[in-house]
Amino acid sequence: MNTIITIGREFGSGGREFGRRLAEELHFEYYDKEIVEAISKHTSLSEEYVQQVIESAPHPLFPITIGQSMSYTENYQMHQIQKVYQAQCEIIKDLASKSNCVIVGRCADYILRERDDVLNVFIHADMDFRLKRIKADTDKEFKDDNKVIDFINKTDKKRANYYNYYSSKKWGDSRSYDFCID
Amino acid sequence: MNTIITIGREFGSGGREFGRRLAEELHFEYYDKEIVEAISKHTSLSEEYVQQVIESAPHPLFPITIGQSMSYTENYQMHQIQKVYQAQCEIIKDLASKSNCVIVGRCADYILRERDDVLNVFIHADMDFRLKRIKADTDKEFKDDNKVIDFINKTDKKRANYYNYYSSKKWGDSRSYDFCID
Repeated sequence: MNTIITIGREFGSGGREFGRRLAEELHFEYYDKEIVEAISKHTSLSEEYVQQVIESAPHPLFPITIGQSMSYTENYQMHQIQKVYQAQCEIIKDLASKSNCVIVGRCADYILRERDDVLNVFIHADMDFRLKRIKADTDKEFKDDNKVIDFINKTDKKRANYYNYYSSKKWGDSRSYDFCID
Repeated sequence: MNTIITIGREFGSGGREFGRRLAEELHFEYYDKEIVEAISKHTSLSEEYVQQVIESAPHPLFPITIGQSMSYTENYQMHQIQKVYQAQCEIIKDLASKSNCVIVGRCADYILRERDDVLNVFIHADMDFRLKRIKADTDKEFKDDNKVIDFINKTDKKRANYYNYYSSKKWGDSRSYDFCID
């Protein structure tokens, strides 16, 4: 039995930094983008493609329409998406069984739901805080805050769609986690 | 400036006990049913009636229909409900300005949203834990767990409706609070 801490987070809230510092403090392994690299190796798909896939939920009708009304290309794409998710599940389960660790994102809380050594955390922050943080974090000049806010909201929406699609829980709802912190 | 801790909670989660013990530990004032008593005195309405009113949200069309299509009785009831909410706001604001305190329920987080000395906490627990807790807490014999679960869900639904009606936030969503704990 290990101690696994999973971190879900709103975009720009500092959840990733929180996870990294927590892992440092606790001398735990830290997994974030490493998972994308591992999936890429496992599936022989490019890291960019894997990243793109695990940032968006498949079409909601996927389980019904596959093999029926979908074209060959759509069908093939759906199989790739499932392949990525399968690899993600295996890799996350494998990492969790190896040692104490902090895992950021990737539905890790849901994938590891059958273990009883997992603490699920969600980090959020108000828009003003996130806006400042994102602007400070990049060299790019932002002329219009509304465009950044729009991007933040869209990224969160993708995360929510992905999480709600694969898990039976609701992204951001306190009941989906052990601990939520602003 | 004081320190105010507001506690929202799922029914049976132990949020009230958590609040009471937190207040004891911190030597803070603790307000829970005291608020109902105070509203009752303030409005000259019975405690039972006040309790009933602050456990359910008014009709969603209230702000539009009042004085228009409603009967005299409905109109009168709606005014009573508003009177109770007004008294509740005044009393909670008054308590918060007096001293450090823990306030359980009653939309206190939203009512005190303009203060910057407030920490908003939400306590939740899985159904199994809540079921055991509620059954242990009463002398009554429960033959059918499903009836208790049904009662728990209905109580939570009332709390959610009430909170979502009066606040611009969502009951149980992590983004409505500073801290959520299972």
